Amino acid sequence: MNGINKSSRLPLYYQLVDIIKEKIESNELAEHDKLPPERELCEIYDVSRATVRQAMKELEIAGYVYKSHGKGTFVMSKKIKQDLQKFYSFTTEMEKIGKKPSSQVIEFEAIECNNNKIAAKMGCKLDDKLYKFKRLRLADNEPMMLETTYIPLARFQGISKAQLETQPMYTIFSEQFNVKITMAEESFVPVTIREDEALFLQAIPKSPALMVERLTYEGNTVIEYTVGIVRGDKFKYRVVLQ
Amino acid sequence: MNGINKSSRLPLYYQLVDIIKEKIESNELAEHDKLPPERELCEIYDVSRATVRQAMKELEIAGYVYKSHGKGTFVMSKKIKQDLQKFYSFTTEMEKIGKKPSSQVIEFEAIECNNNKIAAKMGCKLDDKLYKFKRLRLADNEPMMLETTYIPLARFQGISKAQLETQPMYTIFSEQFNVKITMAEESFVPVTIREDEALFLQAIPKSPALMVERLTYEGNTVIEYTVGIVRGDKFKYRVVLQ
Repeated sequence: MNGINKSSRLPLYYQLVDIIKEKIESNELAEHDKLPPERELCEIYDVSRATVRQAMKELEIAGYVYKSHGKGTFVMSKKIKQDLQKFYSFTTEMEKIGKKPSSQVIEFEAIECNNNKIAAKMGCKLDDKLYKFKRLRLADNEPMMLETTYIPLARFQGISKAQLETQPMYTIFSEQFNVKITMAEESFVPVTIREDEALFLQAIPKSPALMVERLTYEGNTVIEYTVGIVRGDKFKYRVVLQ
Repeated sequence: MNGINKSSRLPLYYQLVDIIKEKIESNELAEHDKLPPERELCEIYDVSRATVRQAMKELEIAGYVYKSHGKGTFVMSKKIKQDLQKFYSFTTEMEKIGKKPSSQVIEFEAIECNNNKIAAKMGCKLDDKLYKFKRLRLADNEPMMLETTYIPLARFQGISKAQLETQPMYTIFSEQFNVKITMAEESFVPVTIREDEALFLQAIPKSPALMVERLTYEGNTVIEYTVGIVRGDKFKYRVVLQ
């Protein structure tokens, strides 16, 4: 009994994907464990080379395994669990789990809002001035998410690209601009990673990601609108409902 | 100024996708509005037919538009917003927004747990008996999510397929089994829809979806473990962080 049911309507490679996923999720296969080579998997599960390859490709795209050139296929490190109970920042969350957070500011500009969607989100007028910046967020130098942020220029006059590269944004907000955040709202929609995003994220194009939108409030005013593309193989969001 | 920047590094079709997304998200294009025909889009944005087609394909996969054979391309209805503040059920949430919820029970069986992952999630032993059932959840007869649920057989002895098709599960839990839910935990991971799931969900294979895992507790005991595949073009999850 190897777990493969040849009379099932479910294609063999999906069945093999499920079997290996289960071994990873139950820790029977641990992080960075090497998977058996292709020919061995063929024997164990009595399936063809093509089936094993298709299954490995699916597992790679879904973020369960990674290939190391010439060395084989290994179990990907576990997803980082992000709790959605209270306000959090990437910087403090990464520090909590012992990873070193950093940011690369890819774009930084002052713009006029001239975009109906952003004006609606931020509750601003179409000619209001905003800072717009795009940041790649890394943990232990590994790209995790790509964030595009809009903040009102009038409230944050003088914030600089260099600052955003060296200090956590919310530290700048509170220390330099005396911001008191009262609330944030986040929404989650699944997307697939675009080719231009995949380059920054060092991810597989079309692999799953979460688009996380955040609106941060100071009183009734939106002081931050961020759209993040978060690698699906790196993060898992969790909420407790009572 | 049509919004397309031909000197940008971003491919033209991505730019066109972003322009149309913005029009949809800002309600400049409303639900079920017809988009201009291809040749008109080519003229407005001064791009090729291939660019327009590629953009339309991306917008369709991302759930912003749908094609109606021989009639053209239309703006998809807005995503249903699901708040993650307190315990919710599909049935009551759909009723709240005036949609008629229903369920098709695709599979229903009594099994032995013999799966390390499920045993770990439910805190049960490998030979414990469970009911396992797969339900397609619909709103106004449109498939929204595909859920696989595990519940302990000993706690829910006698629950039937017919019941699950006609009554909300949590109503059966409370009325027939006197269940008092104390807490639920949900986690969210982006995935792409598999071909076998796409058939049930009437969705495009490989389009984005959320895998939502739910553990429901009665005291310290897990009484439900559900893995749902939720159409990404239909749902948006929202949380308030304070």
